[in-house]
Amino acid sequence: MSSISIIGLGGMGRAIGARAVEGGHAVEVVGRDAAKAKDLAAALGGGATAGTFGTAPAGDIVILAVPNASAVPVVAQYGDALAGKVIIDITNPMKADATGLTTPDGTSAAQEIAKAAPASAHVVKAFNTVFGHVLAPGRPLDVLFAGDDARAKASVSAFIESLGLRPLDAGGLEMAHWLEGTGLLMINLARHGVGDFNFALGVSNLS
Amino acid sequence: MSSISIIGLGGMGRAIGARAVEGGHAVEVVGRDAAKAKDLAAALGGGATAGTFGTAPAGDIVILAVPNASAVPVVAQYGDALAGKVIIDITNPMKADATGLTTPDGTSAAQEIAKAAPASAHVVKAFNTVFGHVLAPGRPLDVLFAGDDARAKASVSAFIESLGLRPLDAGGLEMAHWLEGTGLLMINLARHGVGDFNFALGVSNLS
Repeated sequence: MSSISIIGLGGMGRAIGARAVEGGHAVEVVGRDAAKAKDLAAALGGGATAGTFGTAPAGDIVILAVPNASAVPVVAQYGDALAGKVIIDITNPMKADATGLTTPDGTSAAQEIAKAAPASAHVVKAFNTVFGHVLAPGRPLDVLFAGDDARAKASVSAFIESLGLRPLDAGGLEMAHWLEGTGLLMINLARHGVGDFNFALGVSNLS
Repeated sequence: MSSISIIGLGGMGRAIGARAVEGGHAVEVVGRDAAKAKDLAAALGGGATAGTFGTAPAGDIVILAVPNASAVPVVAQYGDALAGKVIIDITNPMKADATGLTTPDGTSAAQEIAKAAPASAHVVKAFNTVFGHVLAPGRPLDVLFAGDDARAKASVSAFIESLGLRPLDAGGLEMAHWLEGTGLLMINLARHGVGDFNFALGVSNLS
């Protein structure tokens, strides 16, 4: 069991929160709207609590589940309150028309978040290639992740597995750019008739 | 049945050629080494023929199965011999250490090939997210593709389907950059213990 804080009260935070409660984790949800955070904690059940936005999260793992445009500002606002944390960046830095990313070549949302976070925090990219609404029902999906710190990655990998999902290690944080591109690709597949947005990307072992 | 020319005598050309023969297509294989092309045609069987490098290919669909670094030079050398063709670019423009692509943001191998090809040719990116050695045995895998010309895409989609594979339309040719990034991601997944290179990337419909 891990202690998990989820910053962000949207669909993806809710979906991961539900699976984390199911997985027996201590879950804290945090948002700028304290009443909404309290409602979400109650809806999640399983002893989930509501934290205070901007103060040190209770969880060792902090899931940054805010819109991508807010991610760096939120991390900057938290500042040292995120010291020592494993931060999971689930965001998709996508142009509104889904023709490209808002982050240039050579960086990624995850890397920009890492720059904004305390040096003792470790950012792992994960979950951005899973649609929130397919994550919800408890299916065994693949979760690709990438990061630079081996211990942080091991902790995120164990967390993913505890949710009944399969962690797939894509390498160092420089791969976050390509995971974010994969998120973009999924939107474009969906727009061109693949699976009506009701699909998951993953890997089949062929041994 | 389509007529298919495959330029390039490596593993990927051979694997697609074998499936194309199996699918009942007229297959021509072409390489700089005429003797090797003749040997490959004989090995493929099913009436496969060897064409002459640099002259107009017999196939309506031309599969460019040369190493990425050779792709643009080969297309430039062919010049007008590729007029009116549907060109499938299967290449992965990858740095030797697989840490990134050799093509910058905002373009792709496929788009550079399209610039080098005659205006009447249409480039479709496809097959670069499938390892050649898993393609070979006849499994029903997903093939992601992208392109700008609707007729060329329809023809490539039908070709993919005729091989017993599932075509997944990722959108316009600007998505080739992200398909190429997905190829890179697959190498990095493999290097981090996923499936020992013996896996396929695809989509699960969850309806």
